[in-house]
Amino acid sequence: MLKLYYARPSLFARPVWLALLEKQVSFELVPVNLNGDQFNPEFMALNPFSHIPVLVDGDFRAIESIAILDYLEAKYPNPPLLPADAKTLATVRMVQLVAVNELLPAVARLIMYDSRSDESKYGHLQAINVLNFWEPLLGNFPYFAGEQLTVAEIVAGMLVCTLPDLGISFANYPRLQAWSDRLLARPTWQQVQLSSEEWTSFKRHLRVMPKTWERRRRQRVKALAQ
Amino acid sequence: MLKLYYARPSLFARPVWLALLEKQVSFELVPVNLNGDQFNPEFMALNPFSHIPVLVDGDFRAIESIAILDYLEAKYPNPPLLPADAKTLATVRMVQLVAVNELLPAVARLIMYDSRSDESKYGHLQAINVLNFWEPLLGNFPYFAGEQLTVAEIVAGMLVCTLPDLGISFANYPRLQAWSDRLLARPTWQQVQLSSEEWTSFKRHLRVMPKTWERRRRQRVKALAQ
Repeated sequence: MLKLYYARPSLFARPVWLALLEKQVSFELVPVNLNGDQFNPEFMALNPFSHIPVLVDGDFRAIESIAILDYLEAKYPNPPLLPADAKTLATVRMVQLVAVNELLPAVARLIMYDSRSDESKYGHLQAINVLNFWEPLLGNFPYFAGEQLTVAEIVAGMLVCTLPDLGISFANYPRLQAWSDRLLARPTWQQVQLSSEEWTSFKRHLRVMPKTWERRRRQRVKALAQ
Repeated sequence: MLKLYYARPSLFARPVWLALLEKQVSFELVPVNLNGDQFNPEFMALNPFSHIPVLVDGDFRAIESIAILDYLEAKYPNPPLLPADAKTLATVRMVQLVAVNELLPAVARLIMYDSRSDESKYGHLQAINVLNFWEPLLGNFPYFAGEQLTVAEIVAGMLVCTLPDLGISFANYPRLQAWSDRLLARPTWQQVQLSSEEWTSFKRHLRVMPKTWERRRRQRVKALAQ
């Protein structure tokens, strides 16, 4: 059976979890404690870069969430989470990559910094920039690829759903508001959604985690230099 | 005709350029001066996130290099730059994503910081970590997907070729050494390769660019707040 190494709040691991649920594949969840277990030799044998998610399928191991999602798509093509048409595929990939490269840093800034700080204000600007890009791209369809749910929803939806709690309203984005509501109504979505307590705890964790990671990183550099 | 907005030294734009050459598609190169033109309204109408590359195909515009590469693959499937088999595809994607998420920050650290600094030493460690991961993954095949050149080569190869100049030897990585030599021998590769002067100038540029970008970023935040 497939094994997914994950942490429940992870914004990288939850999209893979969601894809497994949408594709109705049998899998086992293996929790990784991000307080340090990702630096243990056993985990680093799976992923030398110390990140979750990791997918293990028999003797095959996949790292990097985009690679794992594409693996699942190729191995379990139904229901498809990627469109075949070139322009629609490019649109889905743009949403997926803009989510990771633009919206994720924005969400991290909004969580990690005081709302009056320049960093937080920049996070707000970044997030608005992404919503301005996505609203017309979505058009009048239920999903970015049209009638079909894809990795665009799975990756971007997970992040967009966090925005209202971070002070960003959808008032100027009626299409994204309806899209987000549509996703949150899915049973698969409800299965991976964090409770209010889990989300609060995750935000608290994210305010200290980068410092801990930085310390571990410096330790590894020193160990190498000796 | 396809238009590729690019800058010659860009490690994100050159893989797309290379894919267009490998697929023998007709295209026009449109240079973007990264000293500030990426913040001009005309360019930001194409990409509101101010990054190159951008591909324009008639009335369709694609941003994000991974999205652009997938667009080209779907529109011009021959020669294929992605394998069909699930495990081989996941391997190719792992190489592509590890290149962007692990090796690119390592290369940036090695370029931007003094070689005696902790940042540079960490960049070295990161790069070695990637080579250790890739050497066995390559196995005894000419390319990561076997006999077929793919986006793994196009994205990772561009970065790996910079390592000897940055003080990282392939002495312990005979397979990657042969792989890198194989890529550099390709006529397409030679077409996009930087001259020694261009590479030196790019490294100098990269030592000051992030500060300039940061200043522009702060300016945008202030403009929004007023």
